[in-house]
Amino acid sequence: MSSSPKQRLHSLTNHLQFAHKMKLLYPTSLYLDTKSLEGFSVELHPYDVTLPIPESLIDAEFLVTWSNKSTNLSDAASRMKNLRWIQSLAAGPNDVLAAGFDASRIAITTGSGLHDETVAEHTLGMLLNAARRFYEMRDFQSRGEWPAHLGGAQPDRAPGTFRTLKGANVTIWGFGNIAKTLAPVLTALGANVTGVARSTGVRHGFEVVAEDRLPGILPKTDALVMILPGSASTNGALSAERLALLPSHAWVVNVGRGTSVDEDALLEALEKGSIGGAALDVFSAEPLPKESKLYAAPNLILSPHAAGGRPREAEALIAYNLRRLLAGQELKNII
Amino acid sequence: MSSSPKQRLHSLTNHLQFAHKMKLLYPTSLYLDTKSLEGFSVELHPYDVTLPIPESLIDAEFLVTWSNKSTNLSDAASRMKNLRWIQSLAAGPNDVLAAGFDASRIAITTGSGLHDETVAEHTLGMLLNAARRFYEMRDFQSRGEWPAHLGGAQPDRAPGTFRTLKGANVTIWGFGNIAKTLAPVLTALGANVTGVARSTGVRHGFEVVAEDRLPGILPKTDALVMILPGSASTNGALSAERLALLPSHAWVVNVGRGTSVDEDALLEALEKGSIGGAALDVFSAEPLPKESKLYAAPNLILSPHAAGGRPREAEALIAYNLRRLLAGQELKNII
Repeated sequence: MSSSPKQRLHSLTNHLQFAHKMKLLYPTSLYLDTKSLEGFSVELHPYDVTLPIPESLIDAEFLVTWSNKSTNLSDAASRMKNLRWIQSLAAGPNDVLAAGFDASRIAITTGSGLHDETVAEHTLGMLLNAARRFYEMRDFQSRGEWPAHLGGAQPDRAPGTFRTLKGANVTIWGFGNIAKTLAPVLTALGANVTGVARSTGVRHGFEVVAEDRLPGILPKTDALVMILPGSASTNGALSAERLALLPSHAWVVNVGRGTSVDEDALLEALEKGSIGGAALDVFSAEPLPKESKLYAAPNLILSPHAAGGRPREAEALIAYNLRRLLAGQELKNII
Repeated sequence: MSSSPKQRLHSLTNHLQFAHKMKLLYPTSLYLDTKSLEGFSVELHPYDVTLPIPESLIDAEFLVTWSNKSTNLSDAASRMKNLRWIQSLAAGPNDVLAAGFDASRIAITTGSGLHDETVAEHTLGMLLNAARRFYEMRDFQSRGEWPAHLGGAQPDRAPGTFRTLKGANVTIWGFGNIAKTLAPVLTALGANVTGVARSTGVRHGFEVVAEDRLPGILPKTDALVMILPGSASTNGALSAERLALLPSHAWVVNVGRGTSVDEDALLEALEKGSIGGAALDVFSAEPLPKESKLYAAPNLILSPHAAGGRPREAEALIAYNLRRLLAGQELKNII
């Protein structure tokens, strides 16, 4: 027996109305447009990432995390018995992974992709800061001096300098989604972009070579952009030996992880002037300790892990994964 | 009677060989690839822009200028009796125009277009310096301090801030060739670009409104980029009244001419915090005098007239105009 469309709609509405509604907890540590999470048969509740989850929300099935305190996460791991899914908004949710959640029953998805634009923009800013010497201009300005040598008639693309992206050889080591966003802008500004990754190929329309080609690539590099993830295999990737292969005018820009650069070797290269400079957004220890010599190293641009830290269009990812979860489909960015 | 091709070639060669060869003097104040100026029946001679033209070259017909000393130019104006054409590599060759050359017999062409890429790149760097607060990070670094408040988890595109080009309303006042080069890169980074010029229309694919629309545009502007030429009509264009129309987070970037901004009004706005900041590459007096309060104004980024100053592909313009001159055709960029 078939029912009329109206009857079916009525029955569905009843079902939704009286069924237990699952709960999704979203963090108040950033602004989220929760209107774009509506439309599911799921209750939406804000929570404070610095405190334990309130008793009334402890039965929630879904948890969105962003810059949560570790005490909040370990508490949630032990008390949230119904938890089925955690959506972190961080690209690499080490905090969630370390908190002790039961991975056998809880799906964890990352915020990979939410930070591509912000990191790419910051990296471009660091490259231009280096090439156009804004940091050096600032030092003069702070002393009330006019940096005459940086203005007026200048040589353009003199050999052995990095003063513009036009015609510059920019090597991007770690050629994932951030590089995909950054590389076309560099190309538009006239740079020649080469990628370096684990395997050779064409990615996002750019030539990418394997790491064993670095000895041939580094000597021709004007700016080396490092976007490597933190892991045992990337530890000290930019070693003293590899730094020595860079031309004396070349800049190193690191927006990946601090551990991928041998900081002692980098400091020595900066002090010797065997490279042009370094713009670092990440360090092996953050905040950089007071006593670090990097603060005063010549031609070093310090940025306090500021490239990312602003998830973009997180709502779309949350809604997408929530819909897929409710439909029993595979989640995006699942670990 | 027709001659054979071989005879004609021989005759032409003879003619070129024995005819008086005209001379083109090129400056040694920048690197020029003179190979790309060969192929004309013209002698190419280098000259020093800081000294009088040597007697042996004083009969030259063509002169290329770049950052010439005013004494060099006034001497050339009085002694170079055969001069027919001056190609300046400056976008606005005020130096040549002021030197006393006989405009009735000498064609003067500008280097307009040779500086679009360099100025656009510098302007982009200044916008990112402002949005990503590299100048403020530098101040912390100089004191050996970690600028914690600028890193880590950050609000993204919070209302009433200019922290990214994504979604930012960038108004470009003076929408010529530099804006044509700059605007597409800003768009690629997510900015909404509006142009302001003398008349309304669509230029290079961007909406450009007339200056009488500024009262409607300025209150919605996150970053105002000024690329106005120096002239009586642009003097003080960014007045106290117009500055007051900008939101309190808005930045002013000036890469045109210093005279187009009321510097006293700007200083007051910076000190009051009624605008977000200013990145200035040009000043009403350059170098900025020691006693100027702008050096220490809050949120002021000083750049020493460094946006341009590097003519690009000057050889192509010289060769193009030389060919047209020899062929009796109209010159490009003629004043």
